Amino acid sequence: MHISEVKIRVRYGETDAMGIVYHGAYLPFLEEAREAFVEEAGMKYIEMEEAGYVSPVLDVQISYKHPAKYGDTLTVKVWLEENSLVRTTYGYEVYNKNGNLCLTAFTKHSVVRKDNFKPVSIKKVFPELYAEYERRKKQ
Amino acid sequence: MHISEVKIRVRYGETDAMGIVYHGAYLPFLEEAREAFVEEAGMKYIEMEEAGYVSPVLDVQISYKHPAKYGDTLTVKVWLEENSLVRTTYGYEVYNKNGNLCLTAFTKHSVVRKDNFKPVSIKKVFPELYAEYERRKKQ
Amino acid sequence: MHISEVKIRVRYGETDAMGIVYHGAYLPFLEEAREAFVEEAGMKYIEMEEAGYVSPVLDVQISYKHPAKYGDTLTVKVWLEENSLVRTTYGYEVYNKNGNLCLTAFTKHSVVRKDNFKPVSIKKVFPELYAEYERRKKQ
Amino acid sequence: MHISEVKIRVRYGETDAMGIVYHGAYLPFLEEAREAFVEEAGMKYIEMEEAGYVSPVLDVQISYKHPAKYGDTLTVKVWLEENSLVRTTYGYEVYNKNGNLCLTAFTKHSVVRKDNFKPVSIKKVFPELYAEYERRKKQ
Repeated sequence: MHISEVKIRVRYGETDAMGIVYHGAYLPFLEEAREAFVEEAGMKYIEMEEAGYVSPVLDVQISYKHPAKYGDTLTVKVWLEENSLVRTTYGYEVYNKNGNLCLTAFTKHSVVRKDNFKPVSIKKVFPELYAEYERRKKQ
Repeated sequence: MHISEVKIRVRYGETDAMGIVYHGAYLPFLEEAREAFVEEAGMKYIEMEEAGYVSPVLDVQISYKHPAKYGDTLTVKVWLEENSLVRTTYGYEVYNKNGNLCLTAFTKHSVVRKDNFKPVSIKKVFPELYAEYERRKKQ
Repeated sequence: MHISEVKIRVRYGETDAMGIVYHGAYLPFLEEAREAFVEEAGMKYIEMEEAGYVSPVLDVQISYKHPAKYGDTLTVKVWLEENSLVRTTYGYEVYNKNGNLCLTAFTKHSVVRKDNFKPVSIKKVFPELYAEYERRKKQ
Repeated sequence: MHISEVKIRVRYGETDAMGIVYHGAYLPFLEEAREAFVEEAGMKYIEMEEAGYVSPVLDVQISYKHPAKYGDTLTVKVWLEENSLVRTTYGYEVYNKNGNLCLTAFTKHSVVRKDNFKPVSIKKVFPELYAEYERRKKQ
């Protein structure tokens, strides 16, 4: 299974008064990992937008296991959980610098036209990305 | 069933380059609704902290149905989905100004000691809140 | 002098590990006050965008005087500091619930075309808003 | 003059509906550069906190020159602008990937006790950092 990995240094503004990373601050971390995954599949997310499409988030599911803190550099791992003509689901794990699992997550996405938010077939608009994802599914 | 409701005006910084509310920006909206729910049950979240406890998020599940935009005033509804001695789950719906359902969500929480993040019995540390939640469950 | 005022309840995610409101979290508060000021002058910011213009921030100057905390409801006051054909400067004060002055600020803005970010004459594209601002300057 | 430099990849959630980086999103970028500067001076900001001190922002001044966009990797440069027993001012420049100057900024800071926010002498509590800053001033 192809797993992409990014390192993210916690920013002070991402913490909250509990002294830990705010639970909502992880969504951009997952996004950064997801972009790395897409890039390793041969495409940049910005190219999707330049081609007139965006890839909104349909579903998010996060389980928080262990608090992360300021001073931590987090490791975010991401893989392809599911892929179809119209939906892509990514799985994630976030670890702190001591190797503790901080959270597990899944996000589901479609590809839509930027101008009207109508869903399109990923296979049709980005055939190479789709083919690469299908290859990765079989690994 | 007791449902609390807050109105939230979308801030410009909560939108993203898709021209819609950033998917991560909804977490603070849910939080604001949840606080209103707790207050209507007779307690302020800040009082929990003053008593030496915090209530971290354990699980988040969000399904995005319809994009919200800058200029929208959102209605966030929240109710008690489940309650036990050590876990509380809230359910949410967010509507835009035209009455479109933008998202549904669930968040699960525990109560832990602020100094060591060890979970405690909600019934034991906040007996009145617990009793009120049990009453609300039966409604 | 016309002063607009908004009340803002601090959200948990707007605090940081110092236990106070994160210094960057105030910018959306100033924005919310500024929008109220524009609305009281007879226009909604969203109408600017619908007309094909946006009003980017050119300069920000903030002096932090007193920390605000979760649990505070802040009062943000905003007034017109300067106005010209191509620039508008707003002044701000933020107070916490005890009446302590938390910060003073100024933000300077232009109006630009949404498609190419070229500055335009505010008097030309929004003559009524400009006239109202000129009236307010003399108060 | 000692200049520290960090590279920051713009995150999607840091953009707004104007299609550019939200003006408030730059404050964490400046912070990340400032931390690098402190580290290159031989100390980690987290060590300040572990020693019982925090370094709040007293003043922020930003001039926005050119919009940055999603897809940009920004270069943030930071240097010591002023230093005294009780105040430190940093200067910043942010460039986009094409070398355009996006903004210039200054932030002023004190060091205070974490428990009561009373200012302390930087020379007294962190003599080595203070000495290194004095050396850098003369470069």
